[in-house]
Amino acid sequence: MTSDTSRRPLLLIKSGGAAALPDWRDAFAEFAPEVEVREWNDPAVDANAVDYALVWQPDAGRLGRYPNLKAILSSAAGVDHILADPQLPADLPILRMVTAETVQRMAEFTVMSSLMLLKDMPRIIAQQAASDWTEFATPRTARETRIGIMGLGALGLESARMHAQLGFITAGWARSPRTLEGVECYAGPEQFGAFLARTDILICLLPETEDTRHIIDRPLLQQLPAGACVINVGRGSHLQSEHLLAALDSGHIASALLDVFDQEPLPASAPFWRHPRIIVTPHGAATPSRRERARQAALTIRAMESGAPLQHVYDRQRGY
Amino acid sequence: MTSDTSRRPLLLIKSGGAAALPDWRDAFAEFAPEVEVREWNDPAVDANAVDYALVWQPDAGRLGRYPNLKAILSSAAGVDHILADPQLPADLPILRMVTAETVQRMAEFTVMSSLMLLKDMPRIIAQQAASDWTEFATPRTARETRIGIMGLGALGLESARMHAQLGFITAGWARSPRTLEGVECYAGPEQFGAFLARTDILICLLPETEDTRHIIDRPLLQQLPAGACVINVGRGSHLQSEHLLAALDSGHIASALLDVFDQEPLPASAPFWRHPRIIVTPHGAATPSRRERARQAALTIRAMESGAPLQHVYDRQRGY
Repeated sequence: MTSDTSRRPLLLIKSGGAAALPDWRDAFAEFAPEVEVREWNDPAVDANAVDYALVWQPDAGRLGRYPNLKAILSSAAGVDHILADPQLPADLPILRMVTAETVQRMAEFTVMSSLMLLKDMPRIIAQQAASDWTEFATPRTARETRIGIMGLGALGLESARMHAQLGFITAGWARSPRTLEGVECYAGPEQFGAFLARTDILICLLPETEDTRHIIDRPLLQQLPAGACVINVGRGSHLQSEHLLAALDSGHIASALLDVFDQEPLPASAPFWRHPRIIVTPHGAATPSRRERARQAALTIRAMESGAPLQHVYDRQRGY
Repeated sequence: MTSDTSRRPLLLIKSGGAAALPDWRDAFAEFAPEVEVREWNDPAVDANAVDYALVWQPDAGRLGRYPNLKAILSSAAGVDHILADPQLPADLPILRMVTAETVQRMAEFTVMSSLMLLKDMPRIIAQQAASDWTEFATPRTARETRIGIMGLGALGLESARMHAQLGFITAGWARSPRTLEGVECYAGPEQFGAFLARTDILICLLPETEDTRHIIDRPLLQQLPAGACVINVGRGSHLQSEHLLAALDSGHIASALLDVFDQEPLPASAPFWRHPRIIVTPHGAATPSRRERARQAALTIRAMESGAPLQHVYDRQRGY
């Protein structure tokens, strides 16, 4: 079937709900006015006319109903929320939402998190809640603190660079070897133990794949030095929650900052909320503005329409 | 009176109380074993034999009782807690405690504080206390956020440098002109208004002087743009508390992080503790370890004993 070049590309959006549609329309009007923007549940949309879908957690089976769909654009850096659909069309390109703003925000957030755990903000927050003025000194500066970043994609690399600039002793671990000035890079399962043994603050920035599910479990935590801290900004599925809670309660792990959870919204009954050594943040580490995401989606759609190469395409072989 | 060179220099310490004496003794044994370390309230100390005093908030009148005192070493970067003594000996050198570790810790703390306010951690902390999962996006990255640092001494300069490295748009203001690559420097009262008007996050790192008392008051806060944030890591006396509370409650100031207070320990009745837009930290922004402070004091004592030039001498003319 040849595409009808006289027609405006139609983009269906499921991200932020119907309330977000005006934001999306304004942003596309700015960056790609040729794109027709329609809401996910708009009953007037002809399924045959849908060219693109920009989605967060699309309803299972829905993406398979658009016979002329050209690409699926994730509204986030990860695509696991799309792959969860068992009827997902097998051959369409899936685009990860990685913008310059995503990268900057994530690096800022991880640096903030490392400093908050280094300065024992969990204790300070608890003291403030109790109007308790107890002065205390933390034992180390960033210059004596070893950061270990799991995952050295665009987000991990910039986070590592920013930590190193502040003086942290920074290392990264990835599946395949990487090079980054001022950052010690470990690769593959054979170097994972050495990476963990030298890590005071572990930051998870891995993609969600079969291999990374529950990677932060008891054996991993036991390989970290006593008093280590954990930051999870990857996916909730990376963390074996019970194992982290046990390691915190034994004192082996000093504290944790968690931005992502198996179940989101995190249920009010989850023990994380009330744990004195855990800071819970509501999955906001690196959310770019809608305007920024629209800008990136507009670039992708224009590249597709003109046959130009695409960036941040999900690789079904690698799993990210 | 000629000094008795055969005698070990005697250092009297008031910092951390009697409980801290073993720490101090261990550290001086490492860095300057020739120094005799005695506790502030040790009844066996001969007042004529005291050569140096390392102090935090010395009792009024006490330092005037040591006729052979050669120098007063502050246990902190500021010296206001020493100058508060109306009977302070007029001509003795007073040394500020500025170590490489102080500088690094303060810069780390200010960067953490700026990122925490940028990411609206006051809201996240309140949400966690209420088990409230509400996702929200913050409007700006560091690259769109203007930091303004009041005070460009050793601490302010390094804080400015570290903010600029992370991508913050960074400016500083000081009494006299300064130059720092990547940081816009404002000087003197005539440039203060322009400095405030371009500042989204204001960081106070001024010394306590006659001129800086209550510098953060209503007129200053009103010159900041709407939605600005305030970080005070200088002295409690820099802040007019009522004016800040009013500006927070009106919404003109979005949030604040305060590490220093007029009265410390901060009384349990102080409204700061319970304000949802204020983070209270117990005067720990830049406390170096006792070991690090002992190292610095040892350098000072050896310089004095050998007639070498001194660093970080309090200047009575400038007031810092």
